[in-house]
Amino acid sequence: MEREASAAAAVARNRKVVLRGYIDRAPREDDMELVGGGDVALRVPGGAGAPTVLVKNLYLSCDPYMRGRMRDFHGSYIPPFKPGSPIEGFGVGRVIDSTHPGFSAGDFVSGMTGWEDYSLITKPEQLRKIHKSDIPLSYHLGLLGMPGFTAYVGFYEICSPKKGEFVFVSAASGAVGQIVGQLAKLHGCYVVGSAGTNQKVELLKEKFGFDAAFNYKEEPDLAAALKRRFPEGIDIYFENVGGPMLDAVLLNMRIHGRIAVCGMVSQHGVTAPAGVHNLFSLVSKRIEMKGFIQSDYLHLFPQFVDDITKHYRDGKIAYVEDMSIGLESGPAAFVGLFSGKNVGKQVVCVSQD
Amino acid sequence: MEREASAAAAVARNRKVVLRGYIDRAPREDDMELVGGGDVALRVPGGAGAPTVLVKNLYLSCDPYMRGRMRDFHGSYIPPFKPGSPIEGFGVGRVIDSTHPGFSAGDFVSGMTGWEDYSLITKPEQLRKIHKSDIPLSYHLGLLGMPGFTAYVGFYEICSPKKGEFVFVSAASGAVGQIVGQLAKLHGCYVVGSAGTNQKVELLKEKFGFDAAFNYKEEPDLAAALKRRFPEGIDIYFENVGGPMLDAVLLNMRIHGRIAVCGMVSQHGVTAPAGVHNLFSLVSKRIEMKGFIQSDYLHLFPQFVDDITKHYRDGKIAYVEDMSIGLESGPAAFVGLFSGKNVGKQVVCVSQD
Repeated sequence: MEREASAAAAVARNRKVVLRGYIDRAPREDDMELVGGGDVALRVPGGAGAPTVLVKNLYLSCDPYMRGRMRDFHGSYIPPFKPGSPIEGFGVGRVIDSTHPGFSAGDFVSGMTGWEDYSLITKPEQLRKIHKSDIPLSYHLGLLGMPGFTAYVGFYEICSPKKGEFVFVSAASGAVGQIVGQLAKLHGCYVVGSAGTNQKVELLKEKFGFDAAFNYKEEPDLAAALKRRFPEGIDIYFENVGGPMLDAVLLNMRIHGRIAVCGMVSQHGVTAPAGVHNLFSLVSKRIEMKGFIQSDYLHLFPQFVDDITKHYRDGKIAYVEDMSIGLESGPAAFVGLFSGKNVGKQVVCVSQD
Repeated sequence: MEREASAAAAVARNRKVVLRGYIDRAPREDDMELVGGGDVALRVPGGAGAPTVLVKNLYLSCDPYMRGRMRDFHGSYIPPFKPGSPIEGFGVGRVIDSTHPGFSAGDFVSGMTGWEDYSLITKPEQLRKIHKSDIPLSYHLGLLGMPGFTAYVGFYEICSPKKGEFVFVSAASGAVGQIVGQLAKLHGCYVVGSAGTNQKVELLKEKFGFDAAFNYKEEPDLAAALKRRFPEGIDIYFENVGGPMLDAVLLNMRIHGRIAVCGMVSQHGVTAPAGVHNLFSLVSKRIEMKGFIQSDYLHLFPQFVDDITKHYRDGKIAYVEDMSIGLESGPAAFVGLFSGKNVGKQVVCVSQD
């Protein structure tokens, strides 16, 4: 659609979910607020200066790292949110209007957007165009988006996996964990996952093909729980949770094991994070423990999309998402991440078109 | 000296320092006991079977890892000591008699030996012959021995150092730390060390040429202490202590920093080690933290000896050892490691010839 063709200055209501103020504890629903918003003109404003894209947000992603942006801390790799302004996160949207030559009205895009009905994207170069296919649009926030890419990079670039190795994944039914586990299976590894409900444990075994899985909340002794599943020890730990699970894993690692530190979601909401006591194992077992962020590896993104799309179409990778309906459901959906309420990748559907 | 030439079955008194029993706390002097021992024949016993070397021990090494062998724990990379038997450790000695073709009476050797006047070495293949030179024999337990090699391997193989990087070394005046710091200076890094007395801090600055050094016991806020010395952050941390220092370092690391985990001496004597709370920094700063043991890199040993010997002879590396006199002083010298009593590499002189 040409820009000139949609010149009539239609308007629409633009609701927003804003951060009320910085927090230093686990997020609560009332840390965010849905505000009615005024009308937004369905055009990129005249004199917008740099090329700009107006997007109608369709799906928003709830990711644990966003909790870090609710703190008044400016020393991280990504700046904090602004109180009173919409939450920002990955989203999938439809282009309504654009002054950027790379995007036209009607295009589907994914990228950093706001928690609101319509977002004016002032850095459109960070948007990725989505070619609509048999793959649901929302999957570009998980399987084919940042979480899937995190799994891909973390497993192949950080874990140095070898066929036959013993792999443990925590938070294994989550957006990242479910994909790591399946990539590890495809690589010929023995894979065990942990999750926080029996329903998720079933999902790991039945849907995602993990060799074994357990509900960590039902295990009084995590080290013993791991020892039973890994009598020969763990070669690779894909770390999503931190705290006591990491301590239990350290006791069960094998010599020359690798730990990819993707996140520590159990520690996100905690002012005084749980101490990790068994780091001496790093020496005695010569373990490599490495933190990573997917955005350091963006050169691999096209290969990731090709590989994962093929696996998905071949039926070799399954994907489960947990979709909440309506922008107003966003705060509860986000907060639910930290108590493990979501089953699979948490997304918010703002609109289906 | 030919074996046949010393055939007269001379005997000598053989005192031993034995472990009294396993412990699960910081070692105390009375965990070890000097026993008078009987006479030992100054010959390899007839019918010893496999080639064997009888060594007169001259210098014994006190190293923190030995504390791990005082625990009744068989899952480590090295088995525990046997209660009632002599402590084992690295030592330098003189060959008295040998049925191994590689060693003759009069040779000086270093390797694993017992805390006793004379040791029968039943695995002589682990001994290294020392070519006597201007370098003191005892230095083969530190500068040119396991601690020096630990420093060499840890710095070059684990830290991936680059010229101009900011390097922090804890327990910096110890056997390993003093050498790491000097290698880092030779590599063109900015180097800061911490130690537990003002005397050691002076040593770091005056003798070892560290750019800065501080007494961690006089710093109520370790994170702030590091921030003052590293306003731009730390690229490389050579970890010798663990616990609160590691937490403070994690807050001060730079993006893509590296932590070589050599030991955690502050945690050795502790039944419930201090928790480490800031591991989330591994993710946000993409830090690599890697434990290592020098014996995985023995192929580099000859190159290490050549390099360090040259640096030492060129006056580019200084070395400080703390020598206690007499086998009977061994237990106190060893125990002193864990309260930082030693200044420099702790060795015990059993005999000068």
